Amino acid sequence: MSEFLFPDSLVDRSPGGETIALVVLDGLGGLPHPESGLTELEAARTPVMDAMAAKSSLGMLIPVLPGITPGSGPGHLGLFGYDPTRFIIGRGVLSALGVGFELRPGDVAARLNMASLDADGRITDRRAGRPPDAEGRRIIERVREGLQSPSGVQVFLEHEKEHRAVLVLRGEGLEEGVKDTDPQETGVPPLAAEATVPEAQRTADLLNEVLDQVRELLSGEETVNGFLARGVASYEAPPSFRERYGLKAAVVARYPMYRGVARLVGMDVPGEPSSDAEAMEMFGRALQDHDFVFFHYKATDARGEDGDFDAKVAAIEAADELVGRIAAAGPDVLLVTGDHATPAGYGAHSWHPVPLLIHSRWTRPTASAFGEGTCRTGDIGTVESRHLMTLALAHAGRLAKFGA
Amino acid sequence: MSEFLFPDSLVDRSPGGETIALVVLDGLGGLPHPESGLTELEAARTPVMDAMAAKSSLGMLIPVLPGITPGSGPGHLGLFGYDPTRFIIGRGVLSALGVGFELRPGDVAARLNMASLDADGRITDRRAGRPPDAEGRRIIERVREGLQSPSGVQVFLEHEKEHRAVLVLRGEGLEEGVKDTDPQETGVPPLAAEATVPEAQRTADLLNEVLDQVRELLSGEETVNGFLARGVASYEAPPSFRERYGLKAAVVARYPMYRGVARLVGMDVPGEPSSDAEAMEMFGRALQDHDFVFFHYKATDARGEDGDFDAKVAAIEAADELVGRIAAAGPDVLLVTGDHATPAGYGAHSWHPVPLLIHSRWTRPTASAFGEGTCRTGDIGTVESRHLMTLALAHAGRLAKFGA
Repeated sequence: MSEFLFPDSLVDRSPGGETIALVVLDGLGGLPHPESGLTELEAARTPVMDAMAAKSSLGMLIPVLPGITPGSGPGHLGLFGYDPTRFIIGRGVLSALGVGFELRPGDVAARLNMASLDADGRITDRRAGRPPDAEGRRIIERVREGLQSPSGVQVFLEHEKEHRAVLVLRGEGLEEGVKDTDPQETGVPPLAAEATVPEAQRTADLLNEVLDQVRELLSGEETVNGFLARGVASYEAPPSFRERYGLKAAVVARYPMYRGVARLVGMDVPGEPSSDAEAMEMFGRALQDHDFVFFHYKATDARGEDGDFDAKVAAIEAADELVGRIAAAGPDVLLVTGDHATPAGYGAHSWHPVPLLIHSRWTRPTASAFGEGTCRTGDIGTVESRHLMTLALAHAGRLAKFGA
Repeated sequence: MSEFLFPDSLVDRSPGGETIALVVLDGLGGLPHPESGLTELEAARTPVMDAMAAKSSLGMLIPVLPGITPGSGPGHLGLFGYDPTRFIIGRGVLSALGVGFELRPGDVAARLNMASLDADGRITDRRAGRPPDAEGRRIIERVREGLQSPSGVQVFLEHEKEHRAVLVLRGEGLEEGVKDTDPQETGVPPLAAEATVPEAQRTADLLNEVLDQVRELLSGEETVNGFLARGVASYEAPPSFRERYGLKAAVVARYPMYRGVARLVGMDVPGEPSSDAEAMEMFGRALQDHDFVFFHYKATDARGEDGDFDAKVAAIEAADELVGRIAAAGPDVLLVTGDHATPAGYGAHSWHPVPLLIHSRWTRPTASAFGEGTCRTGDIGTVESRHLMTLALAHAGRLAKFGA
């Protein structure tokens, strides 16, 4: 949470000024197709982004550090200018953000796995056979109804997906520093929550009390009859976009996780678009009364995770049209990049650098196509994602000179 | 003033060895001309540097960090291998260096603005109508004659330009941490100097005493009858070139600011050349008895600040000839670069990376022209300026292997 020397002290925080749009095509970076030698982005037909590249500065972003594969949290924090090696979001907090829960500073959040236990309390399945979402929601509803909040705290339970849920404790003096209760194996009982620092003892006790109640409430269930807690983390809000950059910022994203990460840095959340068309409309409106709008596009990552090269190419081609509409909305500075690579051939997030395009009046164009090949010889060089906001502010005329 | 891990511990400090010349074409980096798509350097006819590029390693330098636009101080400190984000030169110190004042460690320097005050002591013009240099010098002379140094300190006053001057306090126990007395508005009296840390109380008191005397001494003046102080800073010398690199270094620069920054890191100042011809002669002599000579060329930056593309091209073409003469003087390693970009189209210092050429026996040539386009795909990559000295020492055979 640390010092943020740059660019904070140089930021012009006077109202008005040029606008910035950040388009994140999630998992944009790819690997060459074994036959064509082209990555997904290079293989895609992207007339809009290619024409834009010819008027842009290009570069590559290293999401965290060379070789480090980021999750969505660090990937986006880096793009937002928060050094992801210093500002760590706990997994519990990330899950709570992911379900759209509005965390408050001091809240402690944990991820929950629904599990199956035998008559002796030993785990037989750490994921309770991956119950369908409806079943998962029913279980959470049942626990919610019966659960008595321990004295002095509020307890929130939110279903996430299948066997996954989120627990949030709210109250005075809660602290992180509690070990997972998931033993990571079957045939043994869940662990008791254990404090790793003395200040977290009460938080561990409260967690144990809640998990014991859950065991009792679910004792009649056949499959899901216990919860395992992981990633216990307290929520501390970083300095906001407004504080750091003087920017009134908004997020337009169809998935709650990305709205959550944006809310973490103080972005407005004007709505929950359920289609790209709706998202486009929301983007246009958000740009009217914000200095900075972050637009998140998920399909590129999802198709990369599926390992489907052609489907990822199609997702990029669909995104190209959206980028055209975003540009038409008229932001002064337009950034197009990804939070990390999700090469279809790899089928997962990876550590590879990610193409970046910055379009403004102050660019040094070097190529007329947007792809890994053109970006790596671009003017920006290959730099860490945490520098992107500094570049964006510079292009928008919002940064003073450093030193005389 | 911190750790300087690299390259200090690896430096071979034995006397003799290969010589290094650093040519800084101030503000060298540019932006493409809207018609030709070529930058100033690419548009310039530079047969010498192009031929040299064909035998050189090329790269791009990021002066401070991506997106950060440096002033001359941080820009040059970076080239000299001092991380400009850690080693901050105060504005007062920079001004004193700029007028060629020989600061000593412990001195406290402030920038002065000559101002006009009304009968009630309220500021009517923060720049006193920008008096011509002769008038500014007369005012400084008048104050010098009448000023009584407060007990225990020496006071130095130097005219800078028009309404600007520099004040230096020398004595025991002076500290920085004093607020500006310039209220940044008219219609109000100047602020009293105020200490922001208890150690600086005496310094603030001394400054107030001097400024009060100035008011009295100038009470008969019509236009300039008060001084405003800004950027109060104490001077602390960083480890010198000799200490860090084992290099006996000299500067050849026509402008006092650059001689000042070089003196800050312990370079010899063999003279104050008043023409390029004189500077060339001085360079040749300096290379005879120094390991490292820094040659500064100002016109490229000045024409960029003017916003005159063609004039900047002409300045680069004139510099090309000087580079040829510098090469003919026979340094073993020759570096040609800029301290930052000053694109004519932008009309000011900017954050864009700057072309770099390193000529030695150990290069990996990649192109036969010196420009942004060739440098960005060069062997060195796009790196921060603070790494330049490490590269220079390596090419000069002055660095040991790191680790066994």
